[in-house]
Amino acid sequence: MEILERTPDVLNTMLQNISAEWTSNNEGGQTWSVYDIIGHLIHGERTDWIPRAEIILSEKHDKKFEPFNRLAQFEESKEKSLTQLLEEFKTLREKNIEYLRSKRLTDKNLEEKGIHPTFGEVTLSQLLSTWVVHDLNHIAQISRVMAKQYKAEVGPWIEYLRILQL
Amino acid sequence: MEILERTPDVLNTMLQNISAEWTSNNEGGQTWSVYDIIGHLIHGERTDWIPRAEIILSEKHDKKFEPFNRLAQFEESKEKSLTQLLEEFKTLREKNIEYLRSKRLTDKNLEEKGIHPTFGEVTLSQLLSTWVVHDLNHIAQISRVMAKQYKAEVGPWIEYLRILQL
Repeated sequence: MEILERTPDVLNTMLQNISAEWTSNNEGGQTWSVYDIIGHLIHGERTDWIPRAEIILSEKHDKKFEPFNRLAQFEESKEKSLTQLLEEFKTLREKNIEYLRSKRLTDKNLEEKGIHPTFGEVTLSQLLSTWVVHDLNHIAQISRVMAKQYKAEVGPWIEYLRILQL
Repeated sequence: MEILERTPDVLNTMLQNISAEWTSNNEGGQTWSVYDIIGHLIHGERTDWIPRAEIILSEKHDKKFEPFNRLAQFEESKEKSLTQLLEEFKTLREKNIEYLRSKRLTDKNLEEKGIHPTFGEVTLSQLLSTWVVHDLNHIAQISRVMAKQYKAEVGPWIEYLRILQL
């Protein structure tokens, strides 16, 4: 919870009103820009973490998750500014955290299971832990995408900067 | 400049008042904890970026940089809290940015050179670009160190979380 609730403010602090050259460029080829990554995080808030937690906690017999669409943001983010996306993410995340707190999850709840399309049985605890690591993964990715914009500018120091070699 | 001036607030937003389990553990072995990384950033503010820029911009004949001590924080941070370190970093960074702005660097200044202990001739432009990428590198590293604390907790999802494989 400590990490999930910080992520919108971390992203705002890193990105709000920064020049577009940092956020609209990617790492080359079919990789994602910072803008694409924020769209992906929004799609996760809408269709992944909480909807899957709801399936696990439901009385339904069939606890199979819907597969997650990793490319949805290219359609959904269209014509929105980065500022709009950052606000949208913050609003959705606040609502999702509020929902999660309202469930007052017990240790027993955390061991309840759902069916992942690839992995089969997974627990609510694993799903929520993955949500946290997924946030950190994308904060690291955003840092990397931005760092790569200066790959040539650092000259010989590239050798010491691990992030430029990833 | 847009990135350099944001970093203290990004770190504060990520880390201020977070449970110590996220910041005092490392990635195993001789790797650094979040606490160690903040100490390293402080040492850089004191002895690396601006002191090297000053050498480049000086009238001195010998423009050789002092080697940077990558382990100084283990001595210097002793007995300080993470909150103290975050405040110290913010104060030093603000002072350094103020200094940098006061120099009103020209394109010609950016091409001036110093002598790096390993690389030989480097330009002020390369030094300042490296400072930026170094910030982003350590924000990514902090995200990774924190993510690794949940390596077991995510269960089978480890396969999809690149940050846990780095």
